[in-house]
Amino acid sequence: MSKFIVIEGLEGAGKSTAIKNVLATLAKHGITSPVTTREPGGTPLAEKMRELVKQGHPDEPLTDMAELLLLYAARAQLVGNVIKPALARGEWVVGDRHDLSSQAYQGGGRGFDRELMMTMRNTVLGDFKPDLTIYMDIDPKLGLQRASARGELDRIEQMKLDFFERSRERYLEFANSDESIITIDAGQDLETVTNSIITALEAWLVKNGN
Amino acid sequence: MSKFIVIEGLEGAGKSTAIKNVLATLAKHGITSPVTTREPGGTPLAEKMRELVKQGHPDEPLTDMAELLLLYAARAQLVGNVIKPALARGEWVVGDRHDLSSQAYQGGGRGFDRELMMTMRNTVLGDFKPDLTIYMDIDPKLGLQRASARGELDRIEQMKLDFFERSRERYLEFANSDESIITIDAGQDLETVTNSIITALEAWLVKNGN
Repeated sequence: MSKFIVIEGLEGAGKSTAIKNVLATLAKHGITSPVTTREPGGTPLAEKMRELVKQGHPDEPLTDMAELLLLYAARAQLVGNVIKPALARGEWVVGDRHDLSSQAYQGGGRGFDRELMMTMRNTVLGDFKPDLTIYMDIDPKLGLQRASARGELDRIEQMKLDFFERSRERYLEFANSDESIITIDAGQDLETVTNSIITALEAWLVKNGN
Repeated sequence: MSKFIVIEGLEGAGKSTAIKNVLATLAKHGITSPVTTREPGGTPLAEKMRELVKQGHPDEPLTDMAELLLLYAARAQLVGNVIKPALARGEWVVGDRHDLSSQAYQGGGRGFDRELMMTMRNTVLGDFKPDLTIYMDIDPKLGLQRASARGELDRIEQMKLDFFERSRERYLEFANSDESIITIDAGQDLETVTNSIITALEAWLVKNGN
């Protein structure tokens, strides 16, 4: 049966490399062309919303509330027009970020209260959630060093360190209380990280009959 | 003290003319340069969100949920960056549409349930609301005739008649249960409509010490 697997983590946690490892591991198990998505974005309209969130506007600050609503609008588009239809067709979906990012960044980082975050989630997604989330855990100091070495930082990546520390805390809180989230120590050397991902995913696939 | 006055109504109800009458009446009472807004939109970022709602995308339907969230994202921008700051500076604000439009179109027209609509409203706006709303009530058949005579119809204006009938019903329901909403029969001849607006607004201004 088709599954929705999400890779999560702070900037510089190595999500892109993790996704490559996930796709290679799935392929070894005969799941050769899963649908891949990224959030925010992943559809023509959701990419336009992503742009508003990432770039903002030189003459106007994007309010935290509008940011939150835009992120959920983009997610509604992606889930409704791409993820759910793919799963219904029997295809697997591998997502670069999903709702947990909002819980971490908007709930933890921006400080929206937990009830409001759960209300947004339940209102927009109901009980839809990933079957498996691989959370790449990294110290934000290290992550931001890596991310800034890659080039120019966007509006979100320019936030102060304590924003990412609060986001990480919320990530860990969810990871520690939800069995569908596997935490990978992304601060280790690349080979160890890669092996950790593959081993964890293999075990999960076998457990789920793949 | 500064006030927030909103003009509401279906397509073709004569909102633009009503706004002119409101501005002229305010001017007679010494309120000469109120801030004017329109929704969705009214700020650089909110106008971009308006575009997504109005135009959609040729390759992708805008889901009802994403539409609702975009409308509230635009409203969060406008209220946070324009309306509240203006009121705080002591300026009056005259708005072409506000939250009641979402209650009518998304709640009534699209059929989102009442609890969800109230949750969205309370989450985004808290207890912020217009001091006065002038609702231009019109039979959607007549309104759409007028609107289509003006030119090309956008994504919303192309909805079927029953969508607008449900929206009108919801407008009337709110108007009949909220004392801050004045209903104007916009199906009358222009002079009678104009007089009704001016008379109602004059009475309200005097009652409120202006």
